[in-house]
This record gives sequence, C-alpha cells and structure tokens, in this order.
Amino acid sequence: MGLSIHSDEHFMKEALKQAMMAKEEGEIPVGAVVVADNRIIARAYNQTERLNDPTAHAEMLALTAAGNYLGTKYLSDCSLYVTLEPCGMCAGALYWAQLGKLIYAAADEKRGYTVINPAMIHPKTKVIRGPYAEEAGLLVTDFFKGLRG
Amino acid sequence: MGLSIHSDEHFMKEALKQAMMAKEEGEIPVGAVVVADNRIIARAYNQTERLNDPTAHAEMLALTAAGNYLGTKYLSDCSLYVTLEPCGMCAGALYWAQLGKLIYAAADEKRGYTVINPAMIHPKTKVIRGPYAEEAGLLVTDFFKGLRG
Repeated sequence: MGLSIHSDEHFMKEALKQAMMAKEEGEIPVGAVVVADNRIIARAYNQTERLNDPTAHAEMLALTAAGNYLGTKYLSDCSLYVTLEPCGMCAGALYWAQLGKLIYAAADEKRGYTVINPAMIHPKTKVIRGPYAEEAGLLVTDFFKGLRG
Repeated sequence: MGLSIHSDEHFMKEALKQAMMAKEEGEIPVGAVVVADNRIIARAYNQTERLNDPTAHAEMLALTAAGNYLGTKYLSDCSLYVTLEPCGMCAGALYWAQLGKLIYAAADEKRGYTVINPAMIHPKTKVIRGPYAEEAGLLVTDFFKGLRG
C-alpha cells in the first residue's frame, strides 16, 4: 500500500515535469505519462499551439505513443497520469482505449469531462484523484493570469 | 438555397468515398471532409486499426490536417462533413476547434455525442443532419454484421 502511494507520487511528478516543458514553450501547461508494469512507456505535454492542432492535448499524444509502443489500441493494463482532469475529447479517447486506470491531479471545473458527463470514461476504468493537485492547478491558473497580465 | 443543398450532397458524397476507403482496409467505415470557401481542404477516414490508435477517427485526422493546412487550430470558417455522428472524443475536438458547421449523415445511437451531452459541441457550431444518412448508416451496420457473420 505504501509502495503504491509512492508510485503514484513518482509518476505524477513525471507528468508535472512534462507540464513544465509545455509551460516553457508557451503552451497551456498540462503533462501526462502512461505507465505499464510500473514503467513509463509514454510521456507527452500539450502542444496545441505549436502544432496548430486542437487535438494535440497531452493525454491524446500520450495515448497515441503508448498504443504505438504496445502495438495495440487497447490500454486496459495501463495507467495514465495527467496533471489536469481530462476534457471531453480526451475522456472520449480514454474510453475507446479502455484505459485501466486514470489518475489526475487538478480538477478542471470548466472543461473537465465530469462536468460534461462523468460516465464518459469506460466503466472498466478506475478513476483516482491523484497527488500534486495544488501544484498542477497553480501551473494552469498562473499561466492564464500571465496571459491576462 | 438550391445551390447550398446541392453542395451538402456533393461534400457528403466525398465523405462517403472516404468511408468506402476505410471499408476496403477493414476499418469501421466512417469518412470525413473539411470544407472552407466551398473547397475541400482535408479528407480522412477512420484508421484506428491500422495505426493501433484509438484517436485516429476520421474527424480527428481531418481536423488535424485542416488545422495544418490553414495554419490555425480554429476552424470557425470551416464545415465538417462526416458520414456518422461524432463520438464524444470527436465532438470534444470539434469544440476546441470552434468548428463553424457540422454536417453528419447517420446518427450513432450508442456512441454519438448527443447521447453523452448534446451541449458538448461549441455553442457557435451550427449542427445539421446531412444527406445520405441511410447509405452511411448501412455501411456501418453491414460492417458489424460482417464481423459477426
């Protein structure tokens, strides 16, 4: 149990590092990692501005990379760690991937999938509110404050 | 008015051609085109199997291609023609793109976004039930019958 909690913190920290990379590139700072067998198999950060692509959210890029790595579109044995609650698009993608476990840090009270429909996620996906919610949330709010300031 | 109706049929026929290409490759037969200034700027069909990527729906690939072509992630002046009602993932992506007009042929009563939450689409997006609903729907139901048969 103690080990499992430690692991969640470790992996969310890695997702936060990805979010920091997004921040450095002027992107909304959200990061994600996909874990299989206690190993990171994909890392990604939001790149919607750089790629001029509204689909290039951290979760989407991480899903695509993980599917590519594993040679399957199903991620039933994987966990996705993401710094911000997935939006409807990303939750829809996680549904199709039949993701095993979703761990997200900060809630997104405006665009999070739970606002749209909490049942969007696959019924087999275990959803956990992960560590570092405050840090991950501050990254995003500070980013938007900076834009307005 | 007559011209506009003609155009919808023309563009949906092009989306159906894309769906046929998906069918030939053993993919769930869904196709999409993006139109700007009465011209097709992106064409795509579902490639989830080939790419081992649950995000590779026709709409997603078409959005990415259109954003790339226009050099913007916003498709407010574009219309997307798709043979099947978008799922939650795709509707979420269309939201972020602030799509101008969505025209879909067949309804998807199981996984369509209107089942999840009809308000997922951006409030500025005009939604139209387009032509060829029967043809587009039969393509998909015949595909699944073939899988089971």
